[in-house]
Amino acid sequence: MEIDILVSEVGPRDGLQSIERVMPTQDKLDWIRAQFEAGTREIEVGSFVPPKLLPQMADTAEVTRRAAALEGLTVAVLVPNRKGLEHALAAGAHKVSIPFSMSESHSIKNVRKTHAQMLTEIGACIELLASLDARQRPAFEVGLSTAFGCTIEGSVPEDRVVRMAEQVIELGVDEVGLSDTTGYGNPAQLKRLAQGIWSAIGRERMTGVHLHNTRGQGLANVLMAVELGFTTIDSSLGGIGGCPFAPGASGNIVTEDLVFLLESMGLNTGIDLERLFEVRAQVQAALPGEPMYGFVPDAGLPKGFKAH
Amino acid sequence: MEIDILVSEVGPRDGLQSIERVMPTQDKLDWIRAQFEAGTREIEVGSFVPPKLLPQMADTAEVTRRAAALEGLTVAVLVPNRKGLEHALAAGAHKVSIPFSMSESHSIKNVRKTHAQMLTEIGACIELLASLDARQRPAFEVGLSTAFGCTIEGSVPEDRVVRMAEQVIELGVDEVGLSDTTGYGNPAQLKRLAQGIWSAIGRERMTGVHLHNTRGQGLANVLMAVELGFTTIDSSLGGIGGCPFAPGASGNIVTEDLVFLLESMGLNTGIDLERLFEVRAQVQAALPGEPMYGFVPDAGLPKGFKAH
Repeated sequence: MEIDILVSEVGPRDGLQSIERVMPTQDKLDWIRAQFEAGTREIEVGSFVPPKLLPQMADTAEVTRRAAALEGLTVAVLVPNRKGLEHALAAGAHKVSIPFSMSESHSIKNVRKTHAQMLTEIGACIELLASLDARQRPAFEVGLSTAFGCTIEGSVPEDRVVRMAEQVIELGVDEVGLSDTTGYGNPAQLKRLAQGIWSAIGRERMTGVHLHNTRGQGLANVLMAVELGFTTIDSSLGGIGGCPFAPGASGNIVTEDLVFLLESMGLNTGIDLERLFEVRAQVQAALPGEPMYGFVPDAGLPKGFKAH
Repeated sequence: MEIDILVSEVGPRDGLQSIERVMPTQDKLDWIRAQFEAGTREIEVGSFVPPKLLPQMADTAEVTRRAAALEGLTVAVLVPNRKGLEHALAAGAHKVSIPFSMSESHSIKNVRKTHAQMLTEIGACIELLASLDARQRPAFEVGLSTAFGCTIEGSVPEDRVVRMAEQVIELGVDEVGLSDTTGYGNPAQLKRLAQGIWSAIGRERMTGVHLHNTRGQGLANVLMAVELGFTTIDSSLGGIGGCPFAPGASGNIVTEDLVFLLESMGLNTGIDLERLFEVRAQVQAALPGEPMYGFVPDAGLPKGFKAH
C-alpha cells in the first residue's frame, strides 16, 4: 500500500547528538535496522561534523555505509559544509541536508558564517554535486532552520525566509525544508510561511517539515502541515534528546505519538505501531536511564484500535 | 477586545476530582479568583455528587455560591442527575452540565443507568428547569461523553452519537458538548462527528469541546476544533489530575499550552499568560508534590513573544 506521509526518523542524529553519552555503533545499527523493519523508510543516521565537536557522531561514516545496505531505506545525513558533503558522498548517503539558519546571529554563533558566507558554502556544495554523475548524486536539501524564530533574535521576518528559500533554489538546490529549530512555531505561522515559500519556489521544492515539540505544539503544527500538503515529517523515537527542562535541548516530536496521530486519521505511514513500541524498548535498553518521551507508549493504543 | 475562543477552566472540577487529596475550600476560591483575574471567564468549579463518592467535591455548593460573586465569571458545575441539578440551582450556578456517556456499558458502570434511563433523567432535569422563571434558569448542557471511544466498548459508532445528540436536543436541552473522555480522539474523527451532529441539530446547539491529552493529541484536536468553528474549549490548569502513567486519570489539555497555542495563532482568549503562570505557581504551592504538566511553563515564552 502506498504511503501517505513519510515519517522521517531523526533520532539517531538529532536525538543522539543532544545527549551526552555516546551510543556504540552496533547499537545504532541495531536501532536503525529494527526501525526499518517496523516500516520506517527514511532515517537520518548521523551528522558529518568534526568528532571533537560532537563525539556522539564520530562513527557517522560507518553507520551511513552499513545502513545503506538495508534495501529500501533512504539513508539521510546532515552536513554543516562542503567538507561534510565530501564525507557524506564517500560514505554513500542517499540524502544530504545542510542547515541554514534564517537568523543571521544564530548562524554566526552556531557555524561562524554570515548569510552571505552560507550561500557561498551552499554554492560550493552544488558545484561539487554538479561534478558527479547523476546516478551517484544524493538528494540535496537545505534546511531553513530557526525559520519560526530564534532564541537570540526573537522573531524572524517571514519575508526573509521566503527570500532565502528563493536564493537557495536559484543556486541549484533540489529542495528546501522548513525547520522550527526553537519550537517557537504555531499553525497560523506555518501556513503563512509555507504559502509564501511555495509561491516563490513552487510546491515541489518544499515537501518536508522539521517541527519541534518544545512548547507542546508539535502535533498541532503537524496537523496543519498535513492539511497544507506536506508529505515528509521529521520526528525522533521517544523524543530522545529533547527535554523541556534542559535549555537548548531539541524537543523533537515523538515518533510514536506522530505515527498514532497520522494512522488514527487514516493516513498510511507504513509503520507498525506495536513494532515501533518494541524498537522503543530496545533503544531504551541501549540507553539505560535516558529519559524517553511520548504519551501513546504509556497510555497504550485505544481498545480496538486499528491502524490504517 | 472581544474574545475569539472561550477557554473554559475545568481544573477545580475535573482536575481536583482526579487526585486523592482534598483541596481546602479557601484554596479553591483563591485559585478561582486568581484565574479570573488572569482573564479566565468560565470556570467549572465543582460537581454535585454525593460527598461519600467524591469527598474532593463536598464543598461544591459553597464554592459555587462564593465564586458567583465574581462579576463577569460564568460559574459552571457538573451534575450527575436531577438531584444534583437541584443543588446546583440552590447554589446559583450559571451553567450546568450533565455527562451522558455514549457508551452504554460505560454509562451503566459509571452511573448505573442505561441510555433510556439517562434520557429519562435528562427529561426530569428539563422539567425542573421549565418550572423556573427564565431569568433564574442556568444554561443547561448535556456532555456527550466517551463520544470518541470507550475503554470498555472500544469504538463508539458515530451515528449513535449523532442520534443521541438529536434526542437530547428534542428533550429541550439548550446545548450539547462533545467530549473525548478517554483521549481516543483524532482530528479526522472530530471533524466527522462535529459535522454529523451539526447537520442534525444545528451549529448553535454545539459550540464546545472537552478534549483530553491522554495520547498527546490534545492540541492537534484543538486546532481542528478551532478550524471547524468551535468557540469554547475546556482545559485544566497544569493538567492537574491527568497523568499518562496512571490508568483512568483524566489527562486534560493543559490550559497554559492551550492559551499559548491560541494566542500565538492570533486568537484572543482574554487570558494573560504571564499571570496564568503565577496562578500555576499558586496552585502548585497549594498542592505540594502534586504533578503539574505542560510544556510552555517549563520552556518559557518565545523571546519577544507578544500575545494577541
